[in-house]
Amino acid sequence: MKLDRKLRMGMIGGGPGAFIGDVHRKASRLDGEIKLVAGAFDINPEKSEQMGRELALDQARVYGTYTEMIKAESKLPEGERIDFVSITTPNNWHFPIARDFLKAGFHVMCEKPMTITSAEAKQLQSLVKSTGKVFGLMHNYTGYPMVKLAKDMVKKGDMGAIRKVVVQYPQGWLATALERTGSMQAGWRTDPKQSGAGGCVGDIGTHAANLAEYITGNKITHICAELTTFVKGRLLDDDCNCLLKFDNGAKGVLHASQISIGEENNLAIWVHGEKGSLEWHQENPNYLYTRAMNAPEQVWKRGNGYVGEYSAAAGRGTRLPFGHPEAFFEAFANNYRNFAETVKCAIAGDKPSDLAKDFPGVNEGVRGILFIETVVASAKSAKKWTPMKK
Amino acid sequence: MKLDRKLRMGMIGGGPGAFIGDVHRKASRLDGEIKLVAGAFDINPEKSEQMGRELALDQARVYGTYTEMIKAESKLPEGERIDFVSITTPNNWHFPIARDFLKAGFHVMCEKPMTITSAEAKQLQSLVKSTGKVFGLMHNYTGYPMVKLAKDMVKKGDMGAIRKVVVQYPQGWLATALERTGSMQAGWRTDPKQSGAGGCVGDIGTHAANLAEYITGNKITHICAELTTFVKGRLLDDDCNCLLKFDNGAKGVLHASQISIGEENNLAIWVHGEKGSLEWHQENPNYLYTRAMNAPEQVWKRGNGYVGEYSAAAGRGTRLPFGHPEAFFEAFANNYRNFAETVKCAIAGDKPSDLAKDFPGVNEGVRGILFIETVVASAKSAKKWTPMKK
Amino acid sequence: MKLDRKLRMGMIGGGPGAFIGDVHRKASRLDGEIKLVAGAFDINPEKSEQMGRELALDQARVYGTYTEMIKAESKLPEGERIDFVSITTPNNWHFPIARDFLKAGFHVMCEKPMTITSAEAKQLQSLVKSTGKVFGLMHNYTGYPMVKLAKDMVKKGDMGAIRKVVVQYPQGWLATALERTGSMQAGWRTDPKQSGAGGCVGDIGTHAANLAEYITGNKITHICAELTTFVKGRLLDDDCNCLLKFDNGAKGVLHASQISIGEENNLAIWVHGEKGSLEWHQENPNYLYTRAMNAPEQVWKRGNGYVGEYSAAAGRGTRLPFGHPEAFFEAFANNYRNFAETVKCAIAGDKPSDLAKDFPGVNEGVRGILFIETVVASAKSAKKWTPMKK
Amino acid sequence: MKLDRKLRMGMIGGGPGAFIGDVHRKASRLDGEIKLVAGAFDINPEKSEQMGRELALDQARVYGTYTEMIKAESKLPEGERIDFVSITTPNNWHFPIARDFLKAGFHVMCEKPMTITSAEAKQLQSLVKSTGKVFGLMHNYTGYPMVKLAKDMVKKGDMGAIRKVVVQYPQGWLATALERTGSMQAGWRTDPKQSGAGGCVGDIGTHAANLAEYITGNKITHICAELTTFVKGRLLDDDCNCLLKFDNGAKGVLHASQISIGEENNLAIWVHGEKGSLEWHQENPNYLYTRAMNAPEQVWKRGNGYVGEYSAAAGRGTRLPFGHPEAFFEAFANNYRNFAETVKCAIAGDKPSDLAKDFPGVNEGVRGILFIETVVASAKSAKKWTPMKK
Repeated sequence: MKLDRKLRMGMIGGGPGAFIGDVHRKASRLDGEIKLVAGAFDINPEKSEQMGRELALDQARVYGTYTEMIKAESKLPEGERIDFVSITTPNNWHFPIARDFLKAGFHVMCEKPMTITSAEAKQLQSLVKSTGKVFGLMHNYTGYPMVKLAKDMVKKGDMGAIRKVVVQYPQGWLATALERTGSMQAGWRTDPKQSGAGGCVGDIGTHAANLAEYITGNKITHICAELTTFVKGRLLDDDCNCLLKFDNGAKGVLHASQISIGEENNLAIWVHGEKGSLEWHQENPNYLYTRAMNAPEQVWKRGNGYVGEYSAAAGRGTRLPFGHPEAFFEAFANNYRNFAETVKCAIAGDKPSDLAKDFPGVNEGVRGILFIETVVASAKSAKKWTPMKK
Repeated sequence: MKLDRKLRMGMIGGGPGAFIGDVHRKASRLDGEIKLVAGAFDINPEKSEQMGRELALDQARVYGTYTEMIKAESKLPEGERIDFVSITTPNNWHFPIARDFLKAGFHVMCEKPMTITSAEAKQLQSLVKSTGKVFGLMHNYTGYPMVKLAKDMVKKGDMGAIRKVVVQYPQGWLATALERTGSMQAGWRTDPKQSGAGGCVGDIGTHAANLAEYITGNKITHICAELTTFVKGRLLDDDCNCLLKFDNGAKGVLHASQISIGEENNLAIWVHGEKGSLEWHQENPNYLYTRAMNAPEQVWKRGNGYVGEYSAAAGRGTRLPFGHPEAFFEAFANNYRNFAETVKCAIAGDKPSDLAKDFPGVNEGVRGILFIETVVASAKSAKKWTPMKK
Repeated sequence: MKLDRKLRMGMIGGGPGAFIGDVHRKASRLDGEIKLVAGAFDINPEKSEQMGRELALDQARVYGTYTEMIKAESKLPEGERIDFVSITTPNNWHFPIARDFLKAGFHVMCEKPMTITSAEAKQLQSLVKSTGKVFGLMHNYTGYPMVKLAKDMVKKGDMGAIRKVVVQYPQGWLATALERTGSMQAGWRTDPKQSGAGGCVGDIGTHAANLAEYITGNKITHICAELTTFVKGRLLDDDCNCLLKFDNGAKGVLHASQISIGEENNLAIWVHGEKGSLEWHQENPNYLYTRAMNAPEQVWKRGNGYVGEYSAAAGRGTRLPFGHPEAFFEAFANNYRNFAETVKCAIAGDKPSDLAKDFPGVNEGVRGILFIETVVASAKSAKKWTPMKK
Repeated sequence: MKLDRKLRMGMIGGGPGAFIGDVHRKASRLDGEIKLVAGAFDINPEKSEQMGRELALDQARVYGTYTEMIKAESKLPEGERIDFVSITTPNNWHFPIARDFLKAGFHVMCEKPMTITSAEAKQLQSLVKSTGKVFGLMHNYTGYPMVKLAKDMVKKGDMGAIRKVVVQYPQGWLATALERTGSMQAGWRTDPKQSGAGGCVGDIGTHAANLAEYITGNKITHICAELTTFVKGRLLDDDCNCLLKFDNGAKGVLHASQISIGEENNLAIWVHGEKGSLEWHQENPNYLYTRAMNAPEQVWKRGNGYVGEYSAAAGRGTRLPFGHPEAFFEAFANNYRNFAETVKCAIAGDKPSDLAKDFPGVNEGVRGILFIETVVASAKSAKKWTPMKK
């Protein structure tokens, strides 16, 4: 039995001018399976109301605070109240909001990083287990179909045992002290109170680490990290370089930056195995490059039959035929779609397919926070290797 | 006064398995300004109903035929009935459907090519004028922000007077007789009864011509065309090569193909003027390349401040910051957004801004049909140049 | 028996400031098989002497005119006199010089286009036949190893029967009236007395045509051409667009330009057959892209074992392993090397291998002039198709 | 006064089948300024003779050992004997050969790495100083004109103070135990007796370090290195990942590999400063990418007027106009040309220009060995940072 209706979504955060909240709204709309019906969009209730009006929501369901929202929605009849909440606030709010919604019996989709500390992260992990609710974490980049193809290639052994991973996420937008010019985005991301202990490493380094673990299926075990704050007066790191060890013996290099002028969101990965290698670039995401010994390079192109035949996950994550490029929103929407199907199964009492369960969740959230904490610890250490926190 | 509600959309075509209808639905959803409420999705009423169920529509508004739909929707109260209809059927149905909806007082969004003959196209042109209804034609590629940037660069004179245009649209999917394997897409596109006199030229050559005229602001005046049908037994051309003359004296080359194996939707354009040149590729659409004499090439990247500062249209057509790629759906949605704003203005009695009016309409539709007819005539002619039909 | 010594080269043209003469010298030096020993480098004897000094030649063998050179070299003992002459003058001098050296018993390497008229070209063709001398024509671009790989792929049938060829050679350096600023290069290339009837078409259009015929093995039979002179006062065309028919039924598009600002030497070709397609770009010449139905694109990279295993000609034309790029000089030197080996065989009375004979010669020279004359005739004709002159 | 004759070169190494010796011969020939007249090409005298015959050398000057050669050449009259020697043997021979030729009064061009130990390197450094002879070290990659342009951009301050450098040199050719298949290249490069303490780091990591220091003008002060031997039984590292600190406070990432399947010679660098950034790739070396805040990316293309106007060194290192690509041999030849001009000045008693002195020498050689030794030490250390050896 499949749930035959749209899911009802609530949103926390995503007020006027917020970037990621709007992305969540657009991506969740794309497939017509999810309907936004309620929200507490801003810490300023007037702004929350303004956003509610812009979204043509029933004003009764536009709330001043998330606690009000939990209370009010919980009282609504089952056929009306939200099925899940999307949390798109600054990082420091993720934990209490997620916790309280889970406790109140709602499914949760949460922006990354999941929490500020690993203690909180583990608390959420327990809570997800004990409540049985569905928890999605928006590591959006693993939603790209060619990333899923890459994962399946490694899984099927086409690359052989993985030996080396190079993963990068350079940006340049914080090359100057943008946070002192009134930029909201720059403001909270460089503020340890709102962002946690990691600046660049927390904001984007985690994406790189997550991508490497997702594709290879291997776990980082040791980190040797250098964090730098290049912009004077900035309170968090804006550049992050790491050497990595993986649990299968593979070695890695991870570098991320917010001060690499002209770089935009140049997340990219190179995975080298005993039999072959692969390469993927987020800014040109429809292509996956693979290489074997003494053979021409292959360029796999999203949307072709041969992609879907090789990887059901990649095929499923594709809405347009080859040559009509898909991009960021569609990757984001893939996470929403799989999350939504899993939520629907939960509501209907069904078991989701493995394909539906292919979205990042609370375990990836814990990994992310442990990664940040380990990097920060390593950066302070004079020892070369710091074991990944557990 | 701005209309403060979602627009209500109806759809003709887009039944189970149809490609472009689903694209219309997803793209129209993206911004949350348009709501699909009614449709006649398939010539087979059962399939239409099936699609209505999949879309969770009110079954009362899922119709067996478009004429039923006109009748029924017209009777609904103004606050309920559809504001506009999207026509996503095979080409031969575009004309009668568009005509009848316009006559019934509805705004229309229509797939391209607009009609089968230029006589029909001109009839629609008159009808749009006489009814005053808003008519959008889905030449989706001009919705890309970097195409809008290119247009503005030419307009502002940065390229100087245009001398030469090279525009291409190679595909390879019809390199074999796919239409004889039961492929619905291949079937109607190679059937002159459903597609009209042009095969490759009608399906994709028109996009190339439209793109060239949109960016340069110049009109094609003469065509020297060669049409070929490479696949035996096919009823329409599957390859199209043309020399062009433009009204300002510029020369052009246009080539399109459906038999160029491995090409996907490689629409691309090079515009050369007296002062500089520009280049754009649909398959990697976030970049515009410009060149001047004795200076480094410039790569303009979507989403940057300098793009929006140069071109308001490009800035407006952008939903994500630099480095988070946008693609086909977003370009498509840009046409919907501008069309929708113009429809809202029409409903509210307001005048749309020039930026809102930046979507292809009935005039571009007429140009497209005239282009097809001229190419077909030229291909049959022993003379080098055939003047563009009027 | 193989000739066990360096070949002795003479040169006509290539005086101070000349571009292509210096390229011939450098390329002929690369492999250490050819030694420049004599020359008449400039129409101005003082400049010829100056160049002789710069090249540290024996001044007794630096001549004022090519006729002097023929006379003097012919009198030298067989073990001293030049084996062949390289002609690098403006076009109008190619014919008399080549003719006279051939008649005097010397082998000849000649820049392209071979002559000014097809009558001259055919005269040379006869002369080469009657004298039995080796004649090389420097269509340098077919010297690239990946072009040879492409030719072999078509020959082996991997692309299937060829259906369509798109070939281009855009440049931008003559976008302004450079010939009126004292530029020697621009001066003679835009002067019909020195260059012949074709401007852009003669200078670079011929390269495009030659490349298409070389790779496909098919011959152009009909041309529909448009020539334009965009720069006011220029005496020859500076832009050339053609539709083509080939002898096997394939269709083609050829466009070349000298006014496409920012284009450098963007010679590129796309060959589409019934089974697959290939693509090559002169400005990034170490890669060949191939595509088949429903399979990843393949990027063949110069210098790899699999390239040489597939194509002996490509392997032979390679001096460096993969990843150490080769470029223009090496392609040029490939023509010299094969020409030199054939000359050595001629001297030694041996039969050159098929691989050694893989360099353009007098037949390609005749084709080139016929191509230019046909394009010029077609450009003046009101008929669509002009048959290739014979 | 300028020396008005070709330089006479001798060569040690470069026997039949050797790769780099042949590259030295070809590159040194290109400009016609250097003539190979003597050599001891192989440790096997018969092979040395064979190579002498292939090169059509006077057999009297083809020697069995380098010591014979020094003795014999020293006895030749000044107008006949070699001006300099090129050393292209396996690494372990570089030092004694260079030392003995220097002592005997010859100028020296030496392959990298210069020696096996830093003690030897410093001995050479002293010897160069005390003898006053010209010493060139073939770090060929800094011979590329766009690398010289990059260096000048940093020097002129266009990038601002450098903050971060990412430099890589991945290869894949040693992903299997090629050295156990009889491959000569693989054999000596994986043998510590012939190659020294560094495998991947010595062979290619040094190139990456040299490139970073050349372009930025900054010196590496601390290294945190991880060396891995992925192929079982291999005696040296085949993968090398480092974090770097530079003397100006910049941070860096350097990674090199010989087991990254499908990578060829993908040396590439990204330099990020306070005002802008630049990027260069060896495999596509004619382009330099630069970026500033809120401005289009710029692509600088070799051979254009604007390149030579900006950087005299880049202009000087260019033999062909834009669009006719140059590559590895020409970069190599640039080092030879500058070295040769400096040698000529030394012979003539002139002072070389700064442009002529732009080739790597004994100081770069010392840096290279110190880099290798520091990396090897760091790789064994449990401490994060190891200061660069002095």
